[in-house]
Amino acid sequence: MSTFCLQILGTSAALPAYGRNPTAQVLQIAERLFLFDCGEGTQAQMQRYRVRKSKIEAIFITHLHGDHVFGLIGLLTSYSLEGRNQKLDIYGPAGLEDMMNVQLQYNGGGYSYPVHFHVVDTESAGLLWEDDQVEVYHFPLQHRIPTTGYRINEKLRPRNMIKEKIAEYQIPYQKIPGIKGGNDFETADGTIIPNAELTTAPPLPRSFAFCTDTRYHEELAKYIKEVDLLYHESTYCDDLKDQAVVSMHATAKEAAQMAYLAKAKTLILGHYSARYKTISIFEEEAKSIFPQSIAGVEGGTYEVPQLRP
Amino acid sequence: MSTFCLQILGTSAALPAYGRNPTAQVLQIAERLFLFDCGEGTQAQMQRYRVRKSKIEAIFITHLHGDHVFGLIGLLTSYSLEGRNQKLDIYGPAGLEDMMNVQLQYNGGGYSYPVHFHVVDTESAGLLWEDDQVEVYHFPLQHRIPTTGYRINEKLRPRNMIKEKIAEYQIPYQKIPGIKGGNDFETADGTIIPNAELTTAPPLPRSFAFCTDTRYHEELAKYIKEVDLLYHESTYCDDLKDQAVVSMHATAKEAAQMAYLAKAKTLILGHYSARYKTISIFEEEAKSIFPQSIAGVEGGTYEVPQLRP
Repeated sequence: MSTFCLQILGTSAALPAYGRNPTAQVLQIAERLFLFDCGEGTQAQMQRYRVRKSKIEAIFITHLHGDHVFGLIGLLTSYSLEGRNQKLDIYGPAGLEDMMNVQLQYNGGGYSYPVHFHVVDTESAGLLWEDDQVEVYHFPLQHRIPTTGYRINEKLRPRNMIKEKIAEYQIPYQKIPGIKGGNDFETADGTIIPNAELTTAPPLPRSFAFCTDTRYHEELAKYIKEVDLLYHESTYCDDLKDQAVVSMHATAKEAAQMAYLAKAKTLILGHYSARYKTISIFEEEAKSIFPQSIAGVEGGTYEVPQLRP
Repeated sequence: MSTFCLQILGTSAALPAYGRNPTAQVLQIAERLFLFDCGEGTQAQMQRYRVRKSKIEAIFITHLHGDHVFGLIGLLTSYSLEGRNQKLDIYGPAGLEDMMNVQLQYNGGGYSYPVHFHVVDTESAGLLWEDDQVEVYHFPLQHRIPTTGYRINEKLRPRNMIKEKIAEYQIPYQKIPGIKGGNDFETADGTIIPNAELTTAPPLPRSFAFCTDTRYHEELAKYIKEVDLLYHESTYCDDLKDQAVVSMHATAKEAAQMAYLAKAKTLILGHYSARYKTISIFEEEAKSIFPQSIAGVEGGTYEVPQLRP
């Protein structure tokens, strides 16, 4: 039973306020951890919420505004101090590696582990990375500087063979991968056993999309269609819509409209402006349009259960 | 009555542990605030401990290891977001400005206020800055990369005129600055009134020295002689002396020896290694050599009272 769970480490917009921290989220998927954005203090938040940071295999950065990236150099440095040797992949817009290198150059540091920076084209969309369990896509967001969103999907697993059927129909082992892939089976006497009798369906693949920072734009919906867990920034509520337009951010209402348009299952809000002391109004505003809206809180975990069709 | 008070925001060595934060300290002196070092999360710590960060006039950075500087870019960026317009002076080793600029270049940022970077020569000692109330000196520390220590002194104020004496001896106003400077006064009939009868002594100037990171070296004593408040790093206790030698850090015992040698009034310890969960042993070790030793804690304030001779 594989856990699919998002943990939020920071919910603040650019200017930290009311003890809120800048953006960082950890996704547990397919027995691994991925980090999305890394604002200042992310490693301290990981300690507070007992995130096993050594288990993070890849980091995805949306854009180079400080509240999404100023904690990265500290995290990378701490990995070296701890003697990490596991490879780390880092995805983000052009310039990220340079930002890290200049700082390391002056403090005489380096990496104790292999670090691979991958430049993400913020103007296009496409498959960024995959293995046999997981795939990650990127797509453009619309903000003041080049910004990319990410979507991460579990891959559909093969169907599960019903073990008793192997003996019952004397199925040769070399046929099993095909049957798990959906084939029917023909017995020695020519009888066709339909696949549905031999297998059960695999769990439904789960997905997460990370959309920050961005103004509301309908083109986004096609990249995050039917995602299970949608994180969409909501820097403001509708009362400060003008401010959102100017700064190319979204309101809670707009985030909810996007969740509705994309047929997302659950919407998580965050990136709250320092103008707001309490965050319940973000959730209230979004719920009026998209009932499955949640105002994300720091330390909060948001799990997507594993379901079968 | 002017307050002279140090507040500690971070007590951790390079690898944060047990909820401790990297180095940052704020000194209130002569109605202004100066920041010493700025590890990751400093601005969050300022919020937690209600430091009025807009009042900070100058920042002094000892060296470019991340745990002393990774919070600076976030602080400088937040000042811009808040619309600061007051000038900010930043002192530190060569490379600091470049570290900031590269990051700002990629996030499209700039400063909303005048920022003046001043390169401190880490090989020499001397007066760095002064005005009519305060003077700041720098001096070399011995660490793995170029590192400077700082000492900040209140200047000796003029003596205080006893107002009644002005009438009593019919002292002309133009004589008063000289008398405040220590002159005697000669009356119209040639009588010499000794200064001690006309004035009272000003308060004793107070001083603070900030010595981190550094190995123990006796030459340091001459730069911090008779300082009121000495912050000297103590990354380790004596049980890990070998580790201190290798990494060019000091032990609590060595920090105490330095305080004793320099005839400091009070020693504040900090920069505790992640190897130590509790910090009371640092204080115990130091007190055995220098009784006025205190293990600094985050949020702790250390005031030097204003005394008259």
